Amino acid sequence: MDNYRLSGRDAHPEDSIFNIAGRTIGGGNFAVIAGPCSVETEEQIVSIAREVKALGASFLRGGAFKPRTSPYSFSGLGTDGLELLKIARAETGLPIVTEIISEAHIETFSQSADIIQIGARNMQNFSLLKEVGRLNKPVLLKRGLSSTIDELLMAAEHIMSAGAEQVILCERGIRTFETKTRNTLDLSAVPVLKKLSHLPVIVDPSHATGDRSLVEPMSLAAAACGADGLIIEVHNHPDCAMCDGEQSVTPSMFGRIVERVNAVRAALY
Amino acid sequence: MDNYRLSGRDAHPEDSIFNIAGRTIGGGNFAVIAGPCSVETEEQIVSIAREVKALGASFLRGGAFKPRTSPYSFSGLGTDGLELLKIARAETGLPIVTEIISEAHIETFSQSADIIQIGARNMQNFSLLKEVGRLNKPVLLKRGLSSTIDELLMAAEHIMSAGAEQVILCERGIRTFETKTRNTLDLSAVPVLKKLSHLPVIVDPSHATGDRSLVEPMSLAAAACGADGLIIEVHNHPDCAMCDGEQSVTPSMFGRIVERVNAVRAALY
Amino acid sequence: MDNYRLSGRDAHPEDSIFNIAGRTIGGGNFAVIAGPCSVETEEQIVSIAREVKALGASFLRGGAFKPRTSPYSFSGLGTDGLELLKIARAETGLPIVTEIISEAHIETFSQSADIIQIGARNMQNFSLLKEVGRLNKPVLLKRGLSSTIDELLMAAEHIMSAGAEQVILCERGIRTFETKTRNTLDLSAVPVLKKLSHLPVIVDPSHATGDRSLVEPMSLAAAACGADGLIIEVHNHPDCAMCDGEQSVTPSMFGRIVERVNAVRAALY
Amino acid sequence: MDNYRLSGRDAHPEDSIFNIAGRTIGGGNFAVIAGPCSVETEEQIVSIAREVKALGASFLRGGAFKPRTSPYSFSGLGTDGLELLKIARAETGLPIVTEIISEAHIETFSQSADIIQIGARNMQNFSLLKEVGRLNKPVLLKRGLSSTIDELLMAAEHIMSAGAEQVILCERGIRTFETKTRNTLDLSAVPVLKKLSHLPVIVDPSHATGDRSLVEPMSLAAAACGADGLIIEVHNHPDCAMCDGEQSVTPSMFGRIVERVNAVRAALY
Repeated sequence: MDNYRLSGRDAHPEDSIFNIAGRTIGGGNFAVIAGPCSVETEEQIVSIAREVKALGASFLRGGAFKPRTSPYSFSGLGTDGLELLKIARAETGLPIVTEIISEAHIETFSQSADIIQIGARNMQNFSLLKEVGRLNKPVLLKRGLSSTIDELLMAAEHIMSAGAEQVILCERGIRTFETKTRNTLDLSAVPVLKKLSHLPVIVDPSHATGDRSLVEPMSLAAAACGADGLIIEVHNHPDCAMCDGEQSVTPSMFGRIVERVNAVRAALY
Repeated sequence: MDNYRLSGRDAHPEDSIFNIAGRTIGGGNFAVIAGPCSVETEEQIVSIAREVKALGASFLRGGAFKPRTSPYSFSGLGTDGLELLKIARAETGLPIVTEIISEAHIETFSQSADIIQIGARNMQNFSLLKEVGRLNKPVLLKRGLSSTIDELLMAAEHIMSAGAEQVILCERGIRTFETKTRNTLDLSAVPVLKKLSHLPVIVDPSHATGDRSLVEPMSLAAAACGADGLIIEVHNHPDCAMCDGEQSVTPSMFGRIVERVNAVRAALY
Repeated sequence: MDNYRLSGRDAHPEDSIFNIAGRTIGGGNFAVIAGPCSVETEEQIVSIAREVKALGASFLRGGAFKPRTSPYSFSGLGTDGLELLKIARAETGLPIVTEIISEAHIETFSQSADIIQIGARNMQNFSLLKEVGRLNKPVLLKRGLSSTIDELLMAAEHIMSAGAEQVILCERGIRTFETKTRNTLDLSAVPVLKKLSHLPVIVDPSHATGDRSLVEPMSLAAAACGADGLIIEVHNHPDCAMCDGEQSVTPSMFGRIVERVNAVRAALY
Repeated sequence: MDNYRLSGRDAHPEDSIFNIAGRTIGGGNFAVIAGPCSVETEEQIVSIAREVKALGASFLRGGAFKPRTSPYSFSGLGTDGLELLKIARAETGLPIVTEIISEAHIETFSQSADIIQIGARNMQNFSLLKEVGRLNKPVLLKRGLSSTIDELLMAAEHIMSAGAEQVILCERGIRTFETKTRNTLDLSAVPVLKKLSHLPVIVDPSHATGDRSLVEPMSLAAAACGADGLIIEVHNHPDCAMCDGEQSVTPSMFGRIVERVNAVRAALY
């Protein structure tokens, strides 16, 4: 563990608290990031942004560039999607979290995103980690599908050693033999990461389970075991979503989740 | 899923509620099972039983026959251990949960245990499942180290088709590539099992994590996502325990866990 | 590794060579065990026995007691199946390998089987290991679905410390995230086991892959990396087999496998 | 499987045979790629290149840009390393296989490498796949640590749909619970891939096992089950190698492996 030079508790014994575009996360400040898997239209992203803001989200998520297993699947609106996210931000004031998938987009993301997301498939794309780190903007780093906790921290170390200070770690399910859920949400990783590192740790119950009926119980569990936040897929018409509809909750489901998560946190923290 | 003839929701749409020696579990009734990994001495088991009872446990756990990877490790006191458990029950009134590892012990367990535990390594020991099922006593069935949710339910089906009605399912961690925890606690299995089956589902955070500092956060998470109970290893001198000391909590840690679990449940259920 | 007291190379630096009913295995002696998943009828088992013997098998396998995930699946002919195996042995002279699933059958297997098989699901059924070990008959020990190499050797140690000397280890695939094969055949386990232990190591390509078209390439690979034998499912009418037909090869496929395995071994050993 | 539009057998029923800088691979042509994990000095790479060529290698491997879990580990000589590889190629005539880790290096690799390697950690770095595909140069695509066979083929599809025709697939071990080997070599993937795809499939026993004593048996097994080639780490002073020394074989071990692999192939193919 000597290698956690920047991300480790030795380097920074207190919980890190990040102030990002006026929102705080870490050290007792819980943040909910919500929005659709993919940005589809202006109307879609603006209306979802308004709804999730009203229901308690503090950040808007939305994919403009989507890594897809098949080259023949919809892969996002690209820079047009980023523009739509900026419109939604202007309308609601919600800071934007969106995924980068190429070093070639560094400049564009630098100007658009409030938090740059590194997805699970790029967690060990070390060139991208370094380039993103150099921007010294907030980064949301997702755990790879079969990455160990140690590797996740070392990926944070790649980003931080390049210059960034604000890295948020995200548990989003690991690959196991179980097939009833898309991945296996490893919630033990939350307290383990909190023990080893001062960085905030959030949980993505949507990608972890791949099933909207499991998003609420796993959100509650994440809050109970000490996570600093959640990232949840919300869609106003989940069954028509251009990707991952089966794991997206409706705004009304999202509202109930936020309320119950707050109840858990009020009881414990 | 047509095969979940007895354990499935189709067979029994409501949550099953079991009354076991005066305690209830399932359908909104939360149960905490606590005690040492192994029964060691009369003084040990009786004093732990008294402490966990005072702190909120409704059942006493303790191993008399221990399955051990190595034939050269301590494997429990055997029938003497069962006698000590009975003394602890007489002293405290707590019903006993203890693991059976051989068909040859059916008669003895029939007379000693209030709940017969089938351990992870025997989850697909179908001969044992059948013999235990024939007794029609309550059974605590632990998920195998690499068993799917489907296989767990089919193991319950083996027990129930032999005659037993009261089977409690237990998620206790699955085997993955992650090494910071002994196993990976699959909490998504809790709502998945509750959806498929009417049987109560409990969680074992002690064996799942192998680390006492993780027992509290994982207990809270289990309660938050809808588990019907917990089984927790408690030892009065964890560092001197004859097995699994590193995952046993002290009575004072246990007391805090019960309080906070109750707070979570009061907030949500 | 200090715990491999009886199975380890320290205890017995040379490869063990077992003479079982006139056949040898280990230390350069390669053995092929073949036969159907389940014994179905006298005609079936006798005709398959004759065919596989003519094609190069040295042992006959066949299940009389079948562990099945569902209690509602065909679970073998039981003691009648053992009687049919004995008829096939009398007709062909092939020694019998068959799986035991209950301590209650110890006496029966003691009188019927030439090699008693412990299946993957019972690899850590320590009571059964001990009872089988006491018989001091040859044992075929299959690796559990998610058992480590260390646990496999410790299971052998359970059997040997109870009295048995002739334990054959069997790699039969482990559980991973890959779904194109039923399990993932871990062939590296063969040279690792041969380095740590003096016991013979065989490979089961049928259960590992679950796909008859993969049995030949995996048999060749097993022979090439130093296995001491193979156990292969052969059925005269695979598509009508009462279980696991999709992984059974026909006698003519089996003949080709034996020939090509012999060619690999002639080239290397 | 409808998605394997370019990599699938439907698209190209015969085995693809690639001619790369005068060497052939696929369709019965077996190729051995050998060399050090990292290029260290001119003397090192040239001397190893000479040795492996004399012993039967048809391509030289060597890392100039190394993806490393820790940002504090040696990460290769970079473009200087590529220059040294070119010197070794000039001296021996061996075409060069070397790993690209950044889109920013596309131009450089286009001019240096004969085969561009995509490493396991970048198998789903879709931006890199696309950029490399556009070059229409031969690509060696390694399976991700926890990628399915389907995902590996879809990654090939990303490369091919961008323009490349010559993609070589490489099984290099997957992540499982077993710890005696660094990864678990999934040799069943070889015949499964050969059935689904017309592309050549090679095996990397060095990274899969992480143990030089296992490289020979796994090389033999790979050849026996139908692989089209091997990629093997060879170092003249393995214990002084700057990375992965414990898995590198010496030239004399390499010579023995090639001889025995040839013997297996002569016996079978």
